[in-house]
Amino acid sequence: MQTVDLNSDMGEGFGPWTIGDGVDAAIMPLISSANIATGFHAGDPNIMRRTVELALEHGVGIGAHPGFRDLVGFGRRHVNAPAAELVNDMLYQLGALREFAHLQGASLQHIKPHGALYMHLARDEEAAHEFVATLQRLDPQLALFCMDGSATWRAAQALGQPVVREFYADRDYDRSGSIVFIRRVRALDPQEVAAKVLRACQEGRVRTVEGEDIPIAFDSICIHSDTPGALALVEATRAALLGAGIRIEAPR
Amino acid sequence: MQTVDLNSDMGEGFGPWTIGDGVDAAIMPLISSANIATGFHAGDPNIMRRTVELALEHGVGIGAHPGFRDLVGFGRRHVNAPAAELVNDMLYQLGALREFAHLQGASLQHIKPHGALYMHLARDEEAAHEFVATLQRLDPQLALFCMDGSATWRAAQALGQPVVREFYADRDYDRSGSIVFIRRVRALDPQEVAAKVLRACQEGRVRTVEGEDIPIAFDSICIHSDTPGALALVEATRAALLGAGIRIEAPR
Amino acid sequence: MQTVDLNSDMGEGFGPWTIGDGVDAAIMPLISSANIATGFHAGDPNIMRRTVELALEHGVGIGAHPGFRDLVGFGRRHVNAPAAELVNDMLYQLGALREFAHLQGASLQHIKPHGALYMHLARDEEAAHEFVATLQRLDPQLALFCMDGSATWRAAQALGQPVVREFYADRDYDRSGSIVFIRRVRALDPQEVAAKVLRACQEGRVRTVEGEDIPIAFDSICIHSDTPGALALVEATRAALLGAGIRIEAPR
Amino acid sequence: MQTVDLNSDMGEGFGPWTIGDGVDAAIMPLISSANIATGFHAGDPNIMRRTVELALEHGVGIGAHPGFRDLVGFGRRHVNAPAAELVNDMLYQLGALREFAHLQGASLQHIKPHGALYMHLARDEEAAHEFVATLQRLDPQLALFCMDGSATWRAAQALGQPVVREFYADRDYDRSGSIVFIRRVRALDPQEVAAKVLRACQEGRVRTVEGEDIPIAFDSICIHSDTPGALALVEATRAALLGAGIRIEAPR
Repeated sequence: MQTVDLNSDMGEGFGPWTIGDGVDAAIMPLISSANIATGFHAGDPNIMRRTVELALEHGVGIGAHPGFRDLVGFGRRHVNAPAAELVNDMLYQLGALREFAHLQGASLQHIKPHGALYMHLARDEEAAHEFVATLQRLDPQLALFCMDGSATWRAAQALGQPVVREFYADRDYDRSGSIVFIRRVRALDPQEVAAKVLRACQEGRVRTVEGEDIPIAFDSICIHSDTPGALALVEATRAALLGAGIRIEAPR
Repeated sequence: MQTVDLNSDMGEGFGPWTIGDGVDAAIMPLISSANIATGFHAGDPNIMRRTVELALEHGVGIGAHPGFRDLVGFGRRHVNAPAAELVNDMLYQLGALREFAHLQGASLQHIKPHGALYMHLARDEEAAHEFVATLQRLDPQLALFCMDGSATWRAAQALGQPVVREFYADRDYDRSGSIVFIRRVRALDPQEVAAKVLRACQEGRVRTVEGEDIPIAFDSICIHSDTPGALALVEATRAALLGAGIRIEAPR
Repeated sequence: MQTVDLNSDMGEGFGPWTIGDGVDAAIMPLISSANIATGFHAGDPNIMRRTVELALEHGVGIGAHPGFRDLVGFGRRHVNAPAAELVNDMLYQLGALREFAHLQGASLQHIKPHGALYMHLARDEEAAHEFVATLQRLDPQLALFCMDGSATWRAAQALGQPVVREFYADRDYDRSGSIVFIRRVRALDPQEVAAKVLRACQEGRVRTVEGEDIPIAFDSICIHSDTPGALALVEATRAALLGAGIRIEAPR
Repeated sequence: MQTVDLNSDMGEGFGPWTIGDGVDAAIMPLISSANIATGFHAGDPNIMRRTVELALEHGVGIGAHPGFRDLVGFGRRHVNAPAAELVNDMLYQLGALREFAHLQGASLQHIKPHGALYMHLARDEEAAHEFVATLQRLDPQLALFCMDGSATWRAAQALGQPVVREFYADRDYDRSGSIVFIRRVRALDPQEVAAKVLRACQEGRVRTVEGEDIPIAFDSICIHSDTPGALALVEATRAALLGAGIRIEAPR
């Protein structure tokens, strides 16, 4: 691997509130793709506008980060809704962010569903198909961030939507290749995270919670900005990658 | 006047709820411009999608109808917010609707702020200027529905945004040319409304609540779909206009 | 059976919107218990106050009808949340309604969770236990509306909370005694509904969708006010009960 | 002055978000009255429950802190609504908090409207009267936090509701005795704030932004927990008061 994308969720405040350490401005210059919250789980129009401007200042690719309509639960709670309605929710949020990008003369690079919606689409064939089929009709060049082998990824492969496969630097994997869900992410050691990412980039392998190695394929590294100490994780990971001669670049 | 636009607010339900008589499907074929609620005062992604489709079926011009973020108050309550934040709220809503239009291969014809936001922009020079200047930057061809002589209208004239001036068929005017605000609109006589509209089209005059005539200039007639008996008002008005040889057509 | 309770969901509008036929004022005099929406799936403070007053005018027992925090989905979509958080959501809503009752010098008679939350508590042992244990601590006399044999009912039996078991007049039952879920309730024949209710009261049996009879035990009949034609259903049911000498009375 | 109350806004997070420095747990042991956000401008049922428990652990008086229904604006934006509707909004929030207090066997000590609603009631005679008259009917012993001489204070005096008059330690006063509104509160010097408070307690005077002294009468000192460096302000103020022999105690 000579280049890799580094993505983070940005703009996840709401009104007067900031998430985690509130370090968007420090993280943005270090990443290549920003997933910008679009108002249903976090983010509001003022924050969205500022975050789009911040991304453009640093040449970072802009992506919509739509979530379930669940502000109090930060989009981390699954909401049982028909696929067609979830797709409409995502279109609404996608368009809202696109308008702020257009205002700055910019285009959206990607879309990445958030939290429980991301997991839902990774598992639910019908919802994944409906979502990707709608993207095909609306914007067939928009990159879709997803996990290798997920229902989202399969639907994108089947229908021809470009994908960016993610590696989760700040989450554990289990033997099946799934992310281990945890309600409250603990602080992580930056050097360990950086070493895990570098190994994944160089060897295509990651150690699972069961203690075995599994193969892993990806185009982008995700570090959540609301993980405690997120900035240090991004800095250490970036340093490790650059030190190994791997450039951090937006996909394509 | 040989042609006039006829506009109505559409898609003003939310979730399981419909507004007024719930007669969007009956009114849509009779109008030429639809102001579609965009989620802050009414409307949700599912309703927006259906309403865009309904408008396109009937060849009706599609407009965004953004309101204050005030669902419980239906956007009829003024919210004291800085101009820049109100503009961001409108951009968010505008983009959300635009996405549903694009999904159908259609473009937005216009934007018309809703309720208390419409009135705020009609009076507040700074907010009107900020709003129109942003439209100029974003979409200089998007028609702006407003009242003749309002701050919105003046800003559009000064900056070159195309305008469509409205005549309110189901509201009373006072001597100053302002609409008389009422909390709960009473049922109106369709023939009276139709006669008032026809006279306004043919003579350019309207009788005020004080009993005098004032001159009135407009390009579009607005009938609110949540006025009790709205469908009958639209039918009678349409019949009167057509009977007098005035065609109902979207602006431009 | 000489007396039976007749309950209906009341106050399920929001802001300017009414639900179904908007016939609360017509239904209230005909029932003995009102489940008043408490703002998370429907209802707002103004509607809650008016609905409490309406119930008291007609001597109808007042119950809190808390739902998932899901306005756009009318509380009909399951939200995956920990039991402790759901209980807190219900306490919040319970207290809000209690305040309006206290303002009128009245007490709450019961609590009945709404929609998907009702179904969740009927199935989830942990959530049902946490909910009932909290009611025990807070208000051990508050009647809990639930289905015979549900997890809610079992928790209430185990912990000593008084229950009112419901029979759903406007829903179908299957062989297991469960209600058959349907997204959009069709209009029902009032005489058929009334006959079904009367038979259930007199014989303790109901015909399932599979065509067999099952035994059914209940203290209250529920007719949803947002079922199309709800008023006619309530009227026919009430007439059939009274005609057979069964009085309609609030529990206890 | 031998004793004074020290109050602060507590529980002003929402879902995953905390406000300001997120130091409720550090501030709570230092104050005597907590104004607990009730969900419309901040606060959610989980936070409310935890905050009530935290207050009780430290023997701090519990007050409801209802705001405008304006989450994104943190209740700092005025919403133009009829007095009767605002009162219903406050009752809803008051009851919600009261339920969490009752669950712990505790009672509410006071109510203090938040932000723009506090200012609205301080100026609008009709709203203040309607609010206080409703409190009289509902809970005539509930202390009402307000500013000396405000419309709220006058209504309470006229109707007999007990009041607790506030002194704003972290806000500037002008010649008229009003607080100078600022959109974003700057960090303050703890020693200056403590000295200002101590002087107000001992001399009953405060220096205005115009540079003159005005007399000030109060029963409670308010320090906002979302003022940057709030904890240091509370610590310094508390130290100054205790050092001068003034005890910090809840009113009555």
